[in-house]
Amino acid sequence: MRVGGIFYFGYSAGMKNIDLKKLNEKIQHFVDERDWDQFHSVKNLSMALSVEASELLEIFQWLKEDESNHVAQDAKLMGKVEDEVADIFVYLLRIISKTNIDLEKVVLNKLEKNILKYPVTLARGSHKKYDEL
Amino acid sequence: MRVGGIFYFGYSAGMKNIDLKKLNEKIQHFVDERDWDQFHSVKNLSMALSVEASELLEIFQWLKEDESNHVAQDAKLMGKVEDEVADIFVYLLRIISKTNIDLEKVVLNKLEKNILKYPVTLARGSHKKYDEL
Amino acid sequence: MRVGGIFYFGYSAGMKNIDLKKLNEKIQHFVDERDWDQFHSVKNLSMALSVEASELLEIFQWLKEDESNHVAQDAKLMGKVEDEVADIFVYLLRIISKTNIDLEKVVLNKLEKNILKYPVTLARGSHKKYDEL
Amino acid sequence: MRVGGIFYFGYSAGMKNIDLKKLNEKIQHFVDERDWDQFHSVKNLSMALSVEASELLEIFQWLKEDESNHVAQDAKLMGKVEDEVADIFVYLLRIISKTNIDLEKVVLNKLEKNILKYPVTLARGSHKKYDEL
Repeated sequence: MRVGGIFYFGYSAGMKNIDLKKLNEKIQHFVDERDWDQFHSVKNLSMALSVEASELLEIFQWLKEDESNHVAQDAKLMGKVEDEVADIFVYLLRIISKTNIDLEKVVLNKLEKNILKYPVTLARGSHKKYDEL
Repeated sequence: MRVGGIFYFGYSAGMKNIDLKKLNEKIQHFVDERDWDQFHSVKNLSMALSVEASELLEIFQWLKEDESNHVAQDAKLMGKVEDEVADIFVYLLRIISKTNIDLEKVVLNKLEKNILKYPVTLARGSHKKYDEL
Repeated sequence: MRVGGIFYFGYSAGMKNIDLKKLNEKIQHFVDERDWDQFHSVKNLSMALSVEASELLEIFQWLKEDESNHVAQDAKLMGKVEDEVADIFVYLLRIISKTNIDLEKVVLNKLEKNILKYPVTLARGSHKKYDEL
Repeated sequence: MRVGGIFYFGYSAGMKNIDLKKLNEKIQHFVDERDWDQFHSVKNLSMALSVEASELLEIFQWLKEDESNHVAQDAKLMGKVEDEVADIFVYLLRIISKTNIDLEKVVLNKLEKNILKYPVTLARGSHKKYDEL
């Protein structure tokens, strides 16, 4: 896409390296200072993650799909989206930390599975589940 | 835990660097091959993220908190947890990509907010919400 | 639709009396026969209810709003919707039963609150939350 | 249980007849006065229902199972539970109304399915899913 003489290639400023170890240590420090680990069973963390995902959902519940795609143009709304995305990732990191999951590895594994479950020839342009293709 | 002559305490194998740009490109390629971007409005992606968070929740719904903390010892259950964690992160990356969010930055910002909302002296050992402390 | 010589518009066959006591007894019998009450803490039931609500959500995640409004014309999809609606109501009844809630009363109370929170003059045609009207 | 000279047999005050037609009409009137039907696609209603189910979940996310079972003894917390239960049922009624579902019938049908999916001899005392029994 060409904008104002500069070529953009779907460049996303946020798509860079994240040092999960360092980020997790900051979160763990925050939790430890408050003695909150006692509440952070994996069960409870899965509840908290789901609650935060719903708070993100709530932002879009009455918006048209098209309106949701332009959320970045509304600073106030975007602030809420950022906060909820942060909360979701914090709880995801808590769960990963407790269960010793390698996030990148499990994503790549799942992608491999999905490539097999959704063959391009069958899945192209369809939103059906793999067992209904 | 003793590994190679060094004592590690709470060492988590998955807490390392993630190259979000590279990971996102693989996901985008998977999506583009299937022409699925037409379904991926931010609204719809927030629904899908919430659905995946609930599938993680479902794994723990009848387990005791203590049982959930030992999930890593059950290979079959752990495989499910890994798949759901992957699905959640994939949809989170899709939303980040669409809204141009800097994941690390928004997490650090939210952590700063939470440090103010939950002062150690008031929040220590309590699971109350900030407006009830 | 013509019924008994009278024209009804928007008539809904399902909107009739429900004997909650009788329905709850059947569900309780089903639970007792399986000795499942041991899993049915209010916490766990709130998880199960949320999981079922997400299974309903999943049906509509990639559909256009307009497509979702015509779901009743797709017998297969409608069968799924009915099953999820049933699951949601069963878990809602379990929670009501455990906490001794009068369902009709709390709905009427909440409606009264909402009438005050969303005055017609301010709320008409708007999907904003009451604190942003 | 004997309370104040009266015998209670697990009697639940809320388990009585509900006239869904009448209740639905009050809700429809509330919606029409605010011209909100334009937002109430079945897709959006399924989002709203899921959001409300998560708000109920949030109440219990850090509580022990045992604490959740005594929620009725905490008037403030119980007020929140009642409000969320009301919101959930209101959105369930909206969906039922839009899709013309007979609530009692679909619950009884689902119960029949579950009786077959979870035979007492296999399911007794187990929280496994039917496909893992």
